[in-house]
Amino acid sequence: MPRDNDAFQPTSGMVQPRFAGIATFMRLPYLAPEQAKGSVEIGLIGVPWDNGTTNRAGTRHGPRQMRDQSTLMRQVHHVSKLQPFKLANCADLGDVTVNPIDLMDTLKRVEAYYRSIHAAGIVPMTAGGDHQISLPILRGIAHEGPVGLVHIDAHTDTSDRYFGDNLYTHGTPFRRAIEEGLIDPKRMVQIGIRGTMYSTDEKDWGHAQGIRVIEMEEFHDLGLDAVIAEAKAIAGTGPTYLSFDVDSLDPVYAPGTGTPEVGGLTTIEAQRLIRGLRGIDFIGGDVVEVSPPFDPSGMTALVGVSMMFEILCLLAECVAHRREAR
Amino acid sequence: MPRDNDAFQPTSGMVQPRFAGIATFMRLPYLAPEQAKGSVEIGLIGVPWDNGTTNRAGTRHGPRQMRDQSTLMRQVHHVSKLQPFKLANCADLGDVTVNPIDLMDTLKRVEAYYRSIHAAGIVPMTAGGDHQISLPILRGIAHEGPVGLVHIDAHTDTSDRYFGDNLYTHGTPFRRAIEEGLIDPKRMVQIGIRGTMYSTDEKDWGHAQGIRVIEMEEFHDLGLDAVIAEAKAIAGTGPTYLSFDVDSLDPVYAPGTGTPEVGGLTTIEAQRLIRGLRGIDFIGGDVVEVSPPFDPSGMTALVGVSMMFEILCLLAECVAHRREAR
Amino acid sequence: MPRDNDAFQPTSGMVQPRFAGIATFMRLPYLAPEQAKGSVEIGLIGVPWDNGTTNRAGTRHGPRQMRDQSTLMRQVHHVSKLQPFKLANCADLGDVTVNPIDLMDTLKRVEAYYRSIHAAGIVPMTAGGDHQISLPILRGIAHEGPVGLVHIDAHTDTSDRYFGDNLYTHGTPFRRAIEEGLIDPKRMVQIGIRGTMYSTDEKDWGHAQGIRVIEMEEFHDLGLDAVIAEAKAIAGTGPTYLSFDVDSLDPVYAPGTGTPEVGGLTTIEAQRLIRGLRGIDFIGGDVVEVSPPFDPSGMTALVGVSMMFEILCLLAECVAHRREAR
Amino acid sequence: MPRDNDAFQPTSGMVQPRFAGIATFMRLPYLAPEQAKGSVEIGLIGVPWDNGTTNRAGTRHGPRQMRDQSTLMRQVHHVSKLQPFKLANCADLGDVTVNPIDLMDTLKRVEAYYRSIHAAGIVPMTAGGDHQISLPILRGIAHEGPVGLVHIDAHTDTSDRYFGDNLYTHGTPFRRAIEEGLIDPKRMVQIGIRGTMYSTDEKDWGHAQGIRVIEMEEFHDLGLDAVIAEAKAIAGTGPTYLSFDVDSLDPVYAPGTGTPEVGGLTTIEAQRLIRGLRGIDFIGGDVVEVSPPFDPSGMTALVGVSMMFEILCLLAECVAHRREAR
Amino acid sequence: MPRDNDAFQPTSGMVQPRFAGIATFMRLPYLAPEQAKGSVEIGLIGVPWDNGTTNRAGTRHGPRQMRDQSTLMRQVHHVSKLQPFKLANCADLGDVTVNPIDLMDTLKRVEAYYRSIHAAGIVPMTAGGDHQISLPILRGIAHEGPVGLVHIDAHTDTSDRYFGDNLYTHGTPFRRAIEEGLIDPKRMVQIGIRGTMYSTDEKDWGHAQGIRVIEMEEFHDLGLDAVIAEAKAIAGTGPTYLSFDVDSLDPVYAPGTGTPEVGGLTTIEAQRLIRGLRGIDFIGGDVVEVSPPFDPSGMTALVGVSMMFEILCLLAECVAHRREAR
Amino acid sequence: MPRDNDAFQPTSGMVQPRFAGIATFMRLPYLAPEQAKGSVEIGLIGVPWDNGTTNRAGTRHGPRQMRDQSTLMRQVHHVSKLQPFKLANCADLGDVTVNPIDLMDTLKRVEAYYRSIHAAGIVPMTAGGDHQISLPILRGIAHEGPVGLVHIDAHTDTSDRYFGDNLYTHGTPFRRAIEEGLIDPKRMVQIGIRGTMYSTDEKDWGHAQGIRVIEMEEFHDLGLDAVIAEAKAIAGTGPTYLSFDVDSLDPVYAPGTGTPEVGGLTTIEAQRLIRGLRGIDFIGGDVVEVSPPFDPSGMTALVGVSMMFEILCLLAECVAHRREAR
Repeated sequence: MPRDNDAFQPTSGMVQPRFAGIATFMRLPYLAPEQAKGSVEIGLIGVPWDNGTTNRAGTRHGPRQMRDQSTLMRQVHHVSKLQPFKLANCADLGDVTVNPIDLMDTLKRVEAYYRSIHAAGIVPMTAGGDHQISLPILRGIAHEGPVGLVHIDAHTDTSDRYFGDNLYTHGTPFRRAIEEGLIDPKRMVQIGIRGTMYSTDEKDWGHAQGIRVIEMEEFHDLGLDAVIAEAKAIAGTGPTYLSFDVDSLDPVYAPGTGTPEVGGLTTIEAQRLIRGLRGIDFIGGDVVEVSPPFDPSGMTALVGVSMMFEILCLLAECVAHRREAR
Repeated sequence: MPRDNDAFQPTSGMVQPRFAGIATFMRLPYLAPEQAKGSVEIGLIGVPWDNGTTNRAGTRHGPRQMRDQSTLMRQVHHVSKLQPFKLANCADLGDVTVNPIDLMDTLKRVEAYYRSIHAAGIVPMTAGGDHQISLPILRGIAHEGPVGLVHIDAHTDTSDRYFGDNLYTHGTPFRRAIEEGLIDPKRMVQIGIRGTMYSTDEKDWGHAQGIRVIEMEEFHDLGLDAVIAEAKAIAGTGPTYLSFDVDSLDPVYAPGTGTPEVGGLTTIEAQRLIRGLRGIDFIGGDVVEVSPPFDPSGMTALVGVSMMFEILCLLAECVAHRREAR
Repeated sequence: MPRDNDAFQPTSGMVQPRFAGIATFMRLPYLAPEQAKGSVEIGLIGVPWDNGTTNRAGTRHGPRQMRDQSTLMRQVHHVSKLQPFKLANCADLGDVTVNPIDLMDTLKRVEAYYRSIHAAGIVPMTAGGDHQISLPILRGIAHEGPVGLVHIDAHTDTSDRYFGDNLYTHGTPFRRAIEEGLIDPKRMVQIGIRGTMYSTDEKDWGHAQGIRVIEMEEFHDLGLDAVIAEAKAIAGTGPTYLSFDVDSLDPVYAPGTGTPEVGGLTTIEAQRLIRGLRGIDFIGGDVVEVSPPFDPSGMTALVGVSMMFEILCLLAECVAHRREAR
Repeated sequence: MPRDNDAFQPTSGMVQPRFAGIATFMRLPYLAPEQAKGSVEIGLIGVPWDNGTTNRAGTRHGPRQMRDQSTLMRQVHHVSKLQPFKLANCADLGDVTVNPIDLMDTLKRVEAYYRSIHAAGIVPMTAGGDHQISLPILRGIAHEGPVGLVHIDAHTDTSDRYFGDNLYTHGTPFRRAIEEGLIDPKRMVQIGIRGTMYSTDEKDWGHAQGIRVIEMEEFHDLGLDAVIAEAKAIAGTGPTYLSFDVDSLDPVYAPGTGTPEVGGLTTIEAQRLIRGLRGIDFIGGDVVEVSPPFDPSGMTALVGVSMMFEILCLLAECVAHRREAR
Repeated sequence: MPRDNDAFQPTSGMVQPRFAGIATFMRLPYLAPEQAKGSVEIGLIGVPWDNGTTNRAGTRHGPRQMRDQSTLMRQVHHVSKLQPFKLANCADLGDVTVNPIDLMDTLKRVEAYYRSIHAAGIVPMTAGGDHQISLPILRGIAHEGPVGLVHIDAHTDTSDRYFGDNLYTHGTPFRRAIEEGLIDPKRMVQIGIRGTMYSTDEKDWGHAQGIRVIEMEEFHDLGLDAVIAEAKAIAGTGPTYLSFDVDSLDPVYAPGTGTPEVGGLTTIEAQRLIRGLRGIDFIGGDVVEVSPPFDPSGMTALVGVSMMFEILCLLAECVAHRREAR
Repeated sequence: MPRDNDAFQPTSGMVQPRFAGIATFMRLPYLAPEQAKGSVEIGLIGVPWDNGTTNRAGTRHGPRQMRDQSTLMRQVHHVSKLQPFKLANCADLGDVTVNPIDLMDTLKRVEAYYRSIHAAGIVPMTAGGDHQISLPILRGIAHEGPVGLVHIDAHTDTSDRYFGDNLYTHGTPFRRAIEEGLIDPKRMVQIGIRGTMYSTDEKDWGHAQGIRVIEMEEFHDLGLDAVIAEAKAIAGTGPTYLSFDVDSLDPVYAPGTGTPEVGGLTTIEAQRLIRGLRGIDFIGGDVVEVSPPFDPSGMTALVGVSMMFEILCLLAECVAHRREAR
């Protein structure tokens, strides 16, 4: 099944030191989307956009810093022994060309980009950008019918409107996605939710839709294994998207983000949580809200790409299974 | 019971973005103490003073950075659903005017300030400043008789003298407070203590007074629930003060502090510990030792104000209960 | 003439230490705009907005960090001996309520705010925010007829469109302002311009309008005195606005900005340049493009408020002159 | 048994503030090696060398920053109550004179240094430097026969060659040490291993030698007590070396290191792990890979010296036992 | 003459925002050296190597951070109006594959790389790396006969040996280059030299060779124009190399470097100095000693790439002239 | 005359790398004051004290960071060719034992320390500490009669009282010193003064005493040579002290300080100013107000020790002259 295509292997740090060379995601070859069609199975894509941010901006710089830090990733998962670059043809497809001045224009540009690569059979692994980007991504890849969602985050991102009458912010993407029929709320689970709230009824809409919300405190009380089991049961066997907001992690692990909430996940909890989702039929994933200006050290980006590697292992295995099943 | 007084509500981040506006604690209205008397029930107060510090100074800058970060707090506690700003009239009373050159003068100024607001029935929620400030605060609000103390810290702060013959430093406030009859050591518990010691008999005095000391290792061995139960039993039903030193937390959560000790509490442990103290009759609280020069990122201050919010929920509930009981 | 109104004096650092207290601009009293009308002559105002930024965002955090650093300012100018707070009633009017998600909405909000205070006879001294904000400010205060402009900046900000067809960015405000008849290009001088260009004809439009552009190299070749003399001749005797972009300074003085260009002004050159403009009839001023995420140390903000103090001296003297002339 | 030699006590922070004075390890007296022979039992030594580093360098600055932070250490262990400076004569022996340009020359210099102090009966407690330094240290002190090794690290450091044909890097020291008969792989345990791998057979060589590898996930699944028990069983009763790489810790605790891997130990886990090793016959220890340029705050160095203090307690007790047994 | 080849134009920041996309030098296309031969005239090349560094390392990270910051460069020089990307075909050729463990091996690798592109007629514009790299570059491109050298630096880099008997460090490249006949010392000028010295005869060797050394103090006393005139006279009409060490600049402009010396050049002095060299027949240039770990903000790298842009304008004009002359 | 005593030479960076070894001032041997008497002629001394600071504290950490950075200094002045370590026996005498809790106690301790070394004929070169320390130093070394003072600073430090009635702060030392007859105000010059003032008559007292104040603007208008000539004329031939506050420099050169004022000296201006004072009969000097918490990079400390080296050259020459004259 594994194809081990020489053209899509990362440069080894044993040959070229990891600090050397132009930084692409995971040291993979760069192909423009038009070049990628036909051979690439998983596209690693940046969406450098933060105009949906209601507090501290800066995630527009996320993809570049994540590329830089991703050169620390190697080829084999140390627990599962999965080798994503042998399971599927992976490449860096560059960044979507966004418009930092115009939110509605960018929503269209991102949707069009993802529709195009989705049509070409490329599974997207996205680095944000703020969480608003998940909406146009889902518009691009989930328009055939609602998908499941495993959503790891400190915030539910199901608010309705901001600053009067604004429908589109990084606090609203999943409300819009449910309203537009892109996500099946019965197949949606949110993990890591916490932090002060604007009102007591803030989470009522989500509960009414049937979304399962596992707050941090319940995460600790249930234990990791039970959370994983429940998440898998909710996602079921249908196509599912995985969205990872780095603010799900405690701010010590991800200080470089726009809306930090203390009391979050540790990195090893997050890694084991993602690993535990093996078996779900994932059709794409994203890691969002890495904001380099608030962490010049790059450690938040390193955490982000470490999560990307975990998700990539899941996606690559799914791609291989689907290829085999054809 | 909740009064929901419009005049004392914070500005919502849904209306004015959280980065905007002059920074007051929790985005509450500012009232000078003389204006506050008669209406304000809980005063959020800064004591920008660090002349009791024996190692790294900088907590004089704590209140300002904590005000800045406190604009990230919202209105409702996500677990208890308590709404402190509806339970009690809260306001920012500004900073006590300290004298950065004269320790003895400042001890008098701080005591006088707290005596005055205490006389006006205002419950203080203080942002330090170094831990020395707890002494003049207690002189101001606990002079009618000894109170209980829940003290969360890496250090016992019950040393006797420093640098020869100095009685007043941030390492001695609770020894002085017990000697002065402000604290009942039998109703005092210290949680999170750890770190290398100057001598083997360093903790003997406290033990002789009857203080219960729960070191980090015992905290882990007992478990959170047992620690909470014991703390509540020790504090009992009498009036009690809550003092939270951010160095109780592991330095990764609170690098901006003067005397870091590795191996401390996580933020979620601290949050759940404070929440667990619900039911104790608290008459005031402080969060001390946030030192911005050692954490320009503001994350330590964010942690500090997150703990302030937890404590504020306790205080507001106590205020509402006492109001109702009258 | 100087009125020396006790109600509008800053708190002295000899009484309350400069690190203490809630941070308002220059430690002045805070008055909401509606309270300010009738007594305040110069309003210090924040516009925390950066959605016009084409590269690195973050100036939305400018006003708050500038308030913090402004507590280092004292009362008397050490060279001119001007005392702005005695020459005119000054107050902090808080921040304009912007909409971080919607550029067009914010342009309207800012214009309305400035129209209102302009109608009340308040002269604005604004802290940005990105340079886009100068456009709605001018719409608010220069709609009676075109004003002169002294513009100190690394960039001309007279571009036409970005990212396809976007008319409103921080690279276009003065083109729009000229097109809208808010600025008289014949009474406009730009000082400090430098840096690589997108095209050879980038500055042709401005030259065609009659704008005088003094690039850094010419600034050095002419010398400070000649530049001042020319700027004053260009501005003439009519009402004039002063816009200071901190990126006019070399990035070592102002690293916290979005579009740094090496080879700029020193702070003392900028101070002496502004001081030299004494005599022009200024009706307002702004200091823009301070981006705290790119300088957590606050030194860029300190530089920014030092320039605000210089400009404030000019404005206060103009206000006093105009009051006297009435 | 404890000798409590006045000449080898640290300066107390109660007398001279901890920020004051020339920084030596733990505020101990400095003696050049030739002066130390005959009286010093444990030498605290710096090896400021990073030319074995394959990714981010900087550990050459480790010893100096660790000396600076070590002034926060006091005299008594708060759990075991051990007093290392009373159990054994300890002194700072300065830094080995390395050659930052020549790896092979430095390997010889370091080996010669350690041979010399080993011959003088001084037990070394080393601050690195990158992990390559453990090889020449072992050559210096373990040449009489293979010793046991407790190795706490994110990486196995048993690779063979890098960049073609290079035998000596910080990724290879323990492979070389086993090949050279300095370490008995059957008495070697590695704890904390994790992170992506270059190939699926990366760990095969170590397993074939009989090294026991406890990855992070197994560490969590077994629990601390079981890991300690197993480590003690493996090390047995023979002479054993303890090597602590700060990258065994999660990067939030030790961001200042060259090859961070997310998902690591907490500091309290590491402290309790080291403490649990009491009883093993240790003949030396090191704390390596503290890289100050990647953590100017010094917190990584503080963590490093906190671990040095833990190890020093073990070494001092062993020295006292061996002295007594003579 | 200018060719304006569409295939070698940078991406415009007016189309794709400057923070977006994979970072190549100046946003130019990336071509591997073998692809570049035949079409590329100027190669922008990284040499990520710092093993010649005697004090603080870190320049191995220089090329990547300089690529990141170089996306702020635009297409046209604002003073000379030169357009380097229209004057010559420029491309990013990636990084030379160095060996971070082996100095002698790397000297060979770098020389071989430059010999190869030199043979293909590609003019190199290099981003270091420490100053040692200039030696193998000159071995690669100046082996046909000695070239002139304009050397802008705080240090003469003409020392003989370090740490005993080491011939190759970043303090010796130009002594070796002169000894090897790669540089004609009579056509060599050093500008910006300053800082404390190891011995009074430190500069005697250079003077004996005939090198003209212009220390900072003489630079100020002569004035920029005279320095430029003298440099041009010394370089003459023969082929000349331009080596720019960022530590020639005052450390405020370039804190991210290994051997800072206070009292250096300003950026505008350096820019005008380089611009003034127009007319010399340059065959290559480098900007070295940018050390990102000592300036995570990237400002040093921005300064470095600003100087690269200045040098690139010179090189492009030379390339065009030589093409025209053929 | 130069004695070139082998026992008092710094370790060469050509032998032991500059990042290696325990950090003493300029890599000189450390001698406790009692050991130093009889052989040491110039003592390099730290006074780690900041309790006189009215705004941002942190200079207590100055001496340690300055020792660290001073390892970058070499042996020979590159302009004057003076070799201070050959002209006089220099040693690091460690830090004065201060009391961080008690200002009056510390004033006594510092005075006693300096009286003692002064009695032993040791000339002090001090690293602060805040500027308050100059008072007890002068009490220790100038009690035989008033001395001259060259004072380079942004502030006059001749205020009277702070915060009510406090006589001793870092804003008052020279007023006290004049009142106490330690300084002859007619032989006192202040250079670099600038920044906003508390009142228009702030400088009247100093002028009345006859102090010559050269503000930054006058410094530029007069030119360096004229300033030097005037300073030498004022100091005359009598014994003179040199006090250098790093805030005399523009904050870009010295961000790590407590009271930054924009528009200050450049480092090369300061270096040339100090060098120009050669010939004055200096009896001691200090460099104060380096505050490491506000500049973890150490660049301010590097600037500080660069100025120490300049002053040390002056002192060493004076010592040699006086020795010769005996």
